[in-house]
Amino acid sequence: MTYNQTVNKTLRALTLIILLFINNSSFANNGYKVWLQYNHINDDNLRQNYTSQLQSLQLYGNSKTINVIENELNIALKSLLNINLDKNSDKRGLIIGTISTLNSNILSKLKKEEKQLKKDGFIIKQIEVNNKKQIVITAKTKIGVLYGTFNFLRQLQMHQPLENINIVNSPKVDVRMLNHWDNLDRTVERGYSGFSIWDWHRLPDYLDTRYTDYARANASIGINGTALTNVNSDALILTPHYIKKVKALADLFRPYGIKVYLTARFSAPIELGNLETADPLDKKVAQWWKDKTSEIYKEIPDFGGFLVKANSEGQPGPQNYGRNHVDGANMLADAVKPFKGIVMWRAFVYSEHNPEDRAKQAYSEFVPYDGKFRDNVLIQVKNGAIDFQPREPFHPMFGAMPKTNLMMEFQITQEYMGQGTHLVYQPKLFEEVLEADTYREGKGSTVAKVIDGSLHNKKITGIAGVANIGTDINWTGHHFLQANWYGFGRMAWNPHLKSSDIAEEWIRMTFSNQDDFVKPIKKMMLSSRETVVNYMTPYGLHHIMATGHHYGPGPWVGNLSRPEWNPVYYHKADEIGIGFNRSKTGSNATSQYAPQVEKMYNNVKTTPERDLLWFHHVPWDYKLKNGESLWNGLALKYQAGVEEVKEMKSTWASLKKYVDPQRFKEISMMLDIQLQEAKWWRDSCLLYFQQFSQEPLPTTIKKPTKTLEHFQSLRFPFAPGN
Amino acid sequence: MTYNQTVNKTLRALTLIILLFINNSSFANNGYKVWLQYNHINDDNLRQNYTSQLQSLQLYGNSKTINVIENELNIALKSLLNINLDKNSDKRGLIIGTISTLNSNILSKLKKEEKQLKKDGFIIKQIEVNNKKQIVITAKTKIGVLYGTFNFLRQLQMHQPLENINIVNSPKVDVRMLNHWDNLDRTVERGYSGFSIWDWHRLPDYLDTRYTDYARANASIGINGTALTNVNSDALILTPHYIKKVKALADLFRPYGIKVYLTARFSAPIELGNLETADPLDKKVAQWWKDKTSEIYKEIPDFGGFLVKANSEGQPGPQNYGRNHVDGANMLADAVKPFKGIVMWRAFVYSEHNPEDRAKQAYSEFVPYDGKFRDNVLIQVKNGAIDFQPREPFHPMFGAMPKTNLMMEFQITQEYMGQGTHLVYQPKLFEEVLEADTYREGKGSTVAKVIDGSLHNKKITGIAGVANIGTDINWTGHHFLQANWYGFGRMAWNPHLKSSDIAEEWIRMTFSNQDDFVKPIKKMMLSSRETVVNYMTPYGLHHIMATGHHYGPGPWVGNLSRPEWNPVYYHKADEIGIGFNRSKTGSNATSQYAPQVEKMYNNVKTTPERDLLWFHHVPWDYKLKNGESLWNGLALKYQAGVEEVKEMKSTWASLKKYVDPQRFKEISMMLDIQLQEAKWWRDSCLLYFQQFSQEPLPTTIKKPTKTLEHFQSLRFPFAPGN
Repeated sequence: MTYNQTVNKTLRALTLIILLFINNSSFANNGYKVWLQYNHINDDNLRQNYTSQLQSLQLYGNSKTINVIENELNIALKSLLNINLDKNSDKRGLIIGTISTLNSNILSKLKKEEKQLKKDGFIIKQIEVNNKKQIVITAKTKIGVLYGTFNFLRQLQMHQPLENINIVNSPKVDVRMLNHWDNLDRTVERGYSGFSIWDWHRLPDYLDTRYTDYARANASIGINGTALTNVNSDALILTPHYIKKVKALADLFRPYGIKVYLTARFSAPIELGNLETADPLDKKVAQWWKDKTSEIYKEIPDFGGFLVKANSEGQPGPQNYGRNHVDGANMLADAVKPFKGIVMWRAFVYSEHNPEDRAKQAYSEFVPYDGKFRDNVLIQVKNGAIDFQPREPFHPMFGAMPKTNLMMEFQITQEYMGQGTHLVYQPKLFEEVLEADTYREGKGSTVAKVIDGSLHNKKITGIAGVANIGTDINWTGHHFLQANWYGFGRMAWNPHLKSSDIAEEWIRMTFSNQDDFVKPIKKMMLSSRETVVNYMTPYGLHHIMATGHHYGPGPWVGNLSRPEWNPVYYHKADEIGIGFNRSKTGSNATSQYAPQVEKMYNNVKTTPERDLLWFHHVPWDYKLKNGESLWNGLALKYQAGVEEVKEMKSTWASLKKYVDPQRFKEISMMLDIQLQEAKWWRDSCLLYFQQFSQEPLPTTIKKPTKTLEHFQSLRFPFAPGN
Repeated sequence: MTYNQTVNKTLRALTLIILLFINNSSFANNGYKVWLQYNHINDDNLRQNYTSQLQSLQLYGNSKTINVIENELNIALKSLLNINLDKNSDKRGLIIGTISTLNSNILSKLKKEEKQLKKDGFIIKQIEVNNKKQIVITAKTKIGVLYGTFNFLRQLQMHQPLENINIVNSPKVDVRMLNHWDNLDRTVERGYSGFSIWDWHRLPDYLDTRYTDYARANASIGINGTALTNVNSDALILTPHYIKKVKALADLFRPYGIKVYLTARFSAPIELGNLETADPLDKKVAQWWKDKTSEIYKEIPDFGGFLVKANSEGQPGPQNYGRNHVDGANMLADAVKPFKGIVMWRAFVYSEHNPEDRAKQAYSEFVPYDGKFRDNVLIQVKNGAIDFQPREPFHPMFGAMPKTNLMMEFQITQEYMGQGTHLVYQPKLFEEVLEADTYREGKGSTVAKVIDGSLHNKKITGIAGVANIGTDINWTGHHFLQANWYGFGRMAWNPHLKSSDIAEEWIRMTFSNQDDFVKPIKKMMLSSRETVVNYMTPYGLHHIMATGHHYGPGPWVGNLSRPEWNPVYYHKADEIGIGFNRSKTGSNATSQYAPQVEKMYNNVKTTPERDLLWFHHVPWDYKLKNGESLWNGLALKYQAGVEEVKEMKSTWASLKKYVDPQRFKEISMMLDIQLQEAKWWRDSCLLYFQQFSQEPLPTTIKKPTKTLEHFQSLRFPFAPGN
């Protein structure tokens, strides 16, 4: 054995040991690191290629954000490449800092890119400095530099080439935020992954490490705001005791570019201020809010503002005093205005005393006020007119308020989509909504253009997602639901992104870059959204979930006090057919859309079949495009949903070798639950609707083994999120 | 450079890389692995010494427990030594299996040890087989082998020599269990580390990885039972819907030797069975419990039995029907008897309608029934007669029921000891109780001998600890409180162990084997228990915590509906003095002790000063042994408590280099809170008691900066555990 052979043999043996260590840590992958896994790059060529280009780090500027950037690079490069960058050298490597901190030589090579920069956008570009190739990450703002750093790390995570890298990327939406429906007792309304990560009792003195990792994960996808508390709000959050705690979080999040928002209980002036009224036109009330706002800004100078649910589902609001949404929102807007704060006022309103189709009420109530809201008010509109169903047509308010800032509210947490245990890749849903054409300014007036402000030149734009984050070690309960948090952030940054591209990014960062894994998993994720529609609410069915917790099927429920809370209100199944007639012969909800859309939805034949029963009451023997009767078609869709989950299970099982054992097993168990529950949906809904259709099941569908009475008798005490 | 030099240099370089990886993983130590850290052994000599002795693994038998053993060895040895044992060789290594699976050659070398084995005890012994030294781990039972394996791994974790190892160790107590006060909605009564780890909704199909790690941690310290649900029980846990879920946990825990127990709501026959009564002497009621028990055992053949809180703090019980504890307990005991189940009946009873000193009520109610309970009933007695105070004299029931199985209930969760944020090493408290001499059979009749059954030859023995485990990633919120879980388990195995030895084990396994770290940390832990007494309840004060949540001081509270819930009931401070006269001139609680003890406590001069105000109302100017007046002495104790926390802080700060950054920082924040709260206790208690003593503070104590009114005005909405 020669000298070299021996050295090589030793090297190989020890490399093996190192790999054992790496595998050992991946053995215990609990998913806590979400998409910031920074999996070690085992491909020697690629690793050496990266390593040769990443030897030094020149960091410019001095701020907490710069510290965050350095720390993230340390974590990531140690893990990806097992290297530490040299901070005292000008070898090939990274040059990182805001534009104002870079020298003119460097800047002269970024002129074209600099012009394209907007807001917190960033540049990542390979340039030559002193005859050495360097990669510059820069931006106008510190936070932009942080975003650039995360984007750069994403390139490494996805094994992308660095040679001649040149990325300019700016966010298309101003406010990109999570809404936590978290209560002060740490329960989470519609939360399915444990409890609230906000440990109010131990704040402000104990800062859970999770807060930092939450900030890292959010900053990595460009989320820049978080509303900490439930829209069904507790006024206590506005007391000094809690403001101190909120301040601690705001201080921690600031270097990551994340502003803190709070939900404002409209009756707080009475509850906390001992006033006799919360009338927004009462001077004392307005003054109370001004004082309260000053108090908050004194502690948190960059406090984001308020999120308000008013006069909705029992929450207090201006209408309690004979005032309207404009009075309420503007009063709060005036209070936060001096501090550059904003007010997000939710359009999710409906009343049991209003006999109008619930789907119409928000539009009816808000659209007449277009142009009346202050310019620091955003009206927050859910993606559909009912309530985060597996599928809804886009909300008619989008595009209908050209003079009002109007933001999107998506629900990342899966209240009506199997909750914490069903694999549903939601960016596919988000994309469908964002691509929908409102026709408000002619063809191509997509919801995305409403949201990014380009359709009507909005002053402030925003997207909110109701968080699916909880205390579960992997944050979202089901590992795959991390993709919904990730995808939401990416689409909030740019509502024109493709859900398929986002899925690919997420898979590669979270699990593996091996194409044999990426391809089938991507396919599975992209189809998962239609799958849940199939086994829950095909052909435009909606809101037929069980009562209260919305867990599982409950199409038979018709005894709730508020008519519009009953599933029977929504499906209207009878001997003739099924579906809610919202056409001009029915509730005329179609009239709230632009004429082209209205016309399409008014006609059963031009209504896309996926929305059929949303807009029409359709006879059981109606002939679908595939030639089947509605009844058979409906049954076959339920069956297809079940079959698709079986396929998901077998896809997952076939990819075992690519995944660490813990996540593999946990996801397998979740898919077992999803299959079980898909069957539950199919059997119980078909048995129930069959009472009306009086038709047999298509022969390809197995006869349910349990009775309708059995399904109706099921109870789920302590179902989470309720 | 010679060939060898090069190889050595390469080796060193690569070892460094390996170490970087190890450090990298320790960088992110979140404490999830508790004392099973299996920290890599960096000492080359020691590692090589171990590795040379651990080359092969001969595993005998075929069971899930054997799989668990193999899996644990794989995890541990990979991490400690970076080795995989060879399963197909007879090189030096481990021979593991129950006695019945080992061959006669091996057994012939274990004869002496085998004779000493009791129950699930184990042998670890180095013997020679075919001229090779082998380490045998064996036991009569599979679980004993598992215990032996964990003990063996503890030797490695503590860097103990393996040469000539010879350990025989058997548990001294039969039932060693955790009591989870976990509700079905996942809140935990008196839980301060998040929420319940039992995710009932996702059970039985989703088995959280935590359940496995919970089982590993418990098995590693010999815990063999877990009562899953709160003693303030919900009858729903006894329905088929939940029994299925409990079965899933029982199946998972079985290979780890952990039996599942449930709390039984006494009124369940009414609530679930539609009976009109829950009278234990009603035949239908007895039959309902028999049927229910059969139903449970059908699913869980080794179900442990029931834990019952009856006729206490509003819980239903036999007294609701004019029956007594014997009637209630025996009825349930008869139901579980055919299945070898047990009933643990809690002695924690007191009534607001009973004018007797609360400290006396349990003894008065239970001792007359000695000999009347079935032999599968254990009476579960708290360590003291009130309720888990920082310090209580031992419960007079210990030793007073020679013909009754009587088990200990400790509270690991710190309801009255700073809750989740105070570092208090409880095994010191456990030890104090266990070492206390009841004198019931003459001098040396310690509580430990009552509990291990040796004093009165008990049929079944047991210790329960109210768990401090929750969903926090590190299980117990505060990393140091893992030591209380650990220490409880160790003392349940053997109530005669020294708390200082246990502390040393825990420190070495959890943090570091470096003596410069172990020594000061051990000192800090051992003194921490007295520290909390000092700043909360010195000289025998008790139950002066705030109302409801018991978080922080509330000696002023006197307006609660039940007199014995008021702090003023317990401290009885007035112009003359302070303390509860339980001597023969007072409530005569002393009469419940053996004459020697009674005599000691009746006399203020012979009462240990640490229990002074527990037994006597003592004048403010009473002269303490140190020469100070009671008032000054009390004040100085409060001050000492604060000073001691400051010292804990500086000890911890000085040891930064020994600890990974995450745990170092998290523990530092906790110590900051503890100091803040120690001052809060000192200032508020002294200001309050000063109203009665009318004496100035000793000059060494800083004047409180806040007023008594301020302290009295503090409110803690949503305090955890309430």
